[in-house]
Amino acid sequence: MTTPAYIALEGLEGCGKSTHTKRLGEHLNAVITREPGGTRIGSLLRAILADTENTDLDRRTEALLMAADRAQHMAEVIQPALTRGQHVVSDRSIYSTLAYQGYGRQLGTDALLSISTWALNNRLPDMVIYIDVPTDILNERLAKRDLDRFEREGPEFFARIAQGFTELRNADPSRWIVIDGTLPKDDVEADIRTKVLDRLGE
Amino acid sequence: MTTPAYIALEGLEGCGKSTHTKRLGEHLNAVITREPGGTRIGSLLRAILADTENTDLDRRTEALLMAADRAQHMAEVIQPALTRGQHVVSDRSIYSTLAYQGYGRQLGTDALLSISTWALNNRLPDMVIYIDVPTDILNERLAKRDLDRFEREGPEFFARIAQGFTELRNADPSRWIVIDGTLPKDDVEADIRTKVLDRLGE
Repeated sequence: MTTPAYIALEGLEGCGKSTHTKRLGEHLNAVITREPGGTRIGSLLRAILADTENTDLDRRTEALLMAADRAQHMAEVIQPALTRGQHVVSDRSIYSTLAYQGYGRQLGTDALLSISTWALNNRLPDMVIYIDVPTDILNERLAKRDLDRFEREGPEFFARIAQGFTELRNADPSRWIVIDGTLPKDDVEADIRTKVLDRLGE
Repeated sequence: MTTPAYIALEGLEGCGKSTHTKRLGEHLNAVITREPGGTRIGSLLRAILADTENTDLDRRTEALLMAADRAQHMAEVIQPALTRGQHVVSDRSIYSTLAYQGYGRQLGTDALLSISTWALNNRLPDMVIYIDVPTDILNERLAKRDLDRFEREGPEFFARIAQGFTELRNADPSRWIVIDGTLPKDDVEADIRTKVLDRLGE
């Protein structure tokens, strides 16, 4: 049996993470989950984070709520699954905090990396699938949605996040797999599957 | 005018912190506040933290929610009050996290100190009033209350917290003022007031 892996899907809003988290997770018979909101407690925190009424939420509070959600997710979902031998595929992870709060909210990544690593009890994702889609295509996709508190931010915020993701994956290339998210869904799915299975040695 | 001070009251459940936060705060014409729950966002987090149904709350999640509440409290209440020249008197602070989550939940104080210092943007309390009451007296007082998620913990939990507070104040004596909380309320109030005014140089 393969050693169970913790696999995170990352990218900007509308890149297709949720769809491909589900498709990859089903193929691997993995636990399919997400951050924030992968636990009962996490869903309470996700509601606070997404609520468009919470315009008074401080950026450090936001980052710490993401970390709180992550601690609960590791303790309740991720670690138990890995311990019983099952893969975990998660829509977002610590790298979203580094990109969104570190670059997007300009808090920097040093403190956030240290806080979320503590939240995770040092268990970082083994693999990060980055679904790469240019911002102009994402804007077209988002125009069709009801937007949450993050999705309502302006273009500079998302430009900083995109830049953040680029720097994060360049700094740690052995952990990241970059996927062209502009291809048709089934091609994206096949590309992810091939590259993940290769890394898993299956 | 005196430089505005950030004053925290600390102690175990039932020691009289809330009463004396109010009395000292009124005397100083200070902003009277508390952690968790000193802001609108904080009251949402306090509800999650206190809810006796949340038996599944991981200890790291708990610590990070306390830090999230603290970040919001600093940004929205404490720093603005100090900036406009007003004292702040708070029922609980970073030292409750160090004692409750660090010692009580046995997470240690190193990571928690670093996380909460970041949450506070480095603005720690100038003065900590510790209201000292022996555990057996506190148990009698608590017997009359509806207990929240923390108050329902066993005696070993509170013994670790009491030990934690002792170590914290011994390590940093210039910041802490210890008050005998077994005296009548008005005597406790007078003792706190005298010692605080002396420190403030008034």
